Amino acid sequence: MRIAVLGTGTVGRTIATKLVELGHEVTMGSRDAAGEAVTEWAAENGEGASAGTFADAASAGEVVFNCTAGTASLSALEAAGAESLAGKVLVDVANPLDFSRGMPPRLSVCNDDSLSEQIQRAFPEARVVKTLNTVNAAVMVNPGALSEPSDIPICGEDASAKETVAELLEDFGWPAERVLDLGPITSARGMEMYLPLWLALMGAVGGPGFNVRVVRPS
Amino acid sequence: MRIAVLGTGTVGRTIATKLVELGHEVTMGSRDAAGEAVTEWAAENGEGASAGTFADAASAGEVVFNCTAGTASLSALEAAGAESLAGKVLVDVANPLDFSRGMPPRLSVCNDDSLSEQIQRAFPEARVVKTLNTVNAAVMVNPGALSEPSDIPICGEDASAKETVAELLEDFGWPAERVLDLGPITSARGMEMYLPLWLALMGAVGGPGFNVRVVRPS
Repeated sequence: MRIAVLGTGTVGRTIATKLVELGHEVTMGSRDAAGEAVTEWAAENGEGASAGTFADAASAGEVVFNCTAGTASLSALEAAGAESLAGKVLVDVANPLDFSRGMPPRLSVCNDDSLSEQIQRAFPEARVVKTLNTVNAAVMVNPGALSEPSDIPICGEDASAKETVAELLEDFGWPAERVLDLGPITSARGMEMYLPLWLALMGAVGGPGFNVRVVRPS
Repeated sequence: MRIAVLGTGTVGRTIATKLVELGHEVTMGSRDAAGEAVTEWAAENGEGASAGTFADAASAGEVVFNCTAGTASLSALEAAGAESLAGKVLVDVANPLDFSRGMPPRLSVCNDDSLSEQIQRAFPEARVVKTLNTVNAAVMVNPGALSEPSDIPICGEDASAKETVAELLEDFGWPAERVLDLGPITSARGMEMYLPLWLALMGAVGGPGFNVRVVRPS
């Protein structure tokens, strides 16, 4: 599949590299297509990997991953272009964390709204699916490295888009029964508002390589 | 131990009943000490159970559980009285959920602040510990009914207060290694902001009787 990964940070590079390994044709998009991070990544990852602007990537991909910083996502997607996003599955992995006032970061949107809803409203023809924002990059693409199976929530308005994303998550190593469909895009509020607890748990666990699993009644 | 439970809803009654079963002397406090919920509860629970106003309960208890509705907690604690709370362990179980605009509820405080921090600021001599707000009442006092061990976060400024609460949690059935100390009272932000995700998970699980466990690296 032709996949766009917007964002050249750890999350974008980790997901893009995994997608190339899985045999997809991946275009990593950035604000500056000649930037070092993105050209290095493309050079290191061979034939399936290419680099371009946000607009180049979005127009090339059938599925688009938003791996930009949450506070920059709307402008990155604006640069990608509404026409290139129309009808496509747009996987929103970002968290709207605002580090401008120091640690711990605040959420720049929460409670009555979420980044995913902002994206869906700004790009109504995109089929936005929120997922993977509740774990760090290493766990996203290698959940089997944890000591037990754990759960990954997913939400969005479009059932077939969620199916497409669930298949990619299975390819990443998430067991099908561990992909938890939380329903409509408004569930992104809870998925994003989990981040402050995730940060506190990271302190208790001693590092970011963890996740949670839902424990049900006997 | 003499314990006050403020609040006569499901959470208050469930915790108070469990504490009586464990042999504690429990005073359930309410706004109206002659109210039906609280007098019935005291009558049904025998010698260790008594009923009173918020002020009666707080002055009787060595440990005080805040099980009032989050949006009413500060006024309930005001009625309990700062003098009666001074120096005592104040276990804040409440969530600041605002249902006034319908479902899903909003948090009336979040992101830069939390209910527990508001309580700690309003009653600086109380030793506030946040815990149990991340599970429903049945799981709070019977975590062993779930299919696997699960985790319960705890936070607060006073280490010995957290130890006292951790011992009560163990008496409730929480394994000591599953009581996760998240550090200072500011971690209550994450514990309270988890509620929107908890509500979405409840929909996916099909009921409120669940919890999560942290899955660590292999």
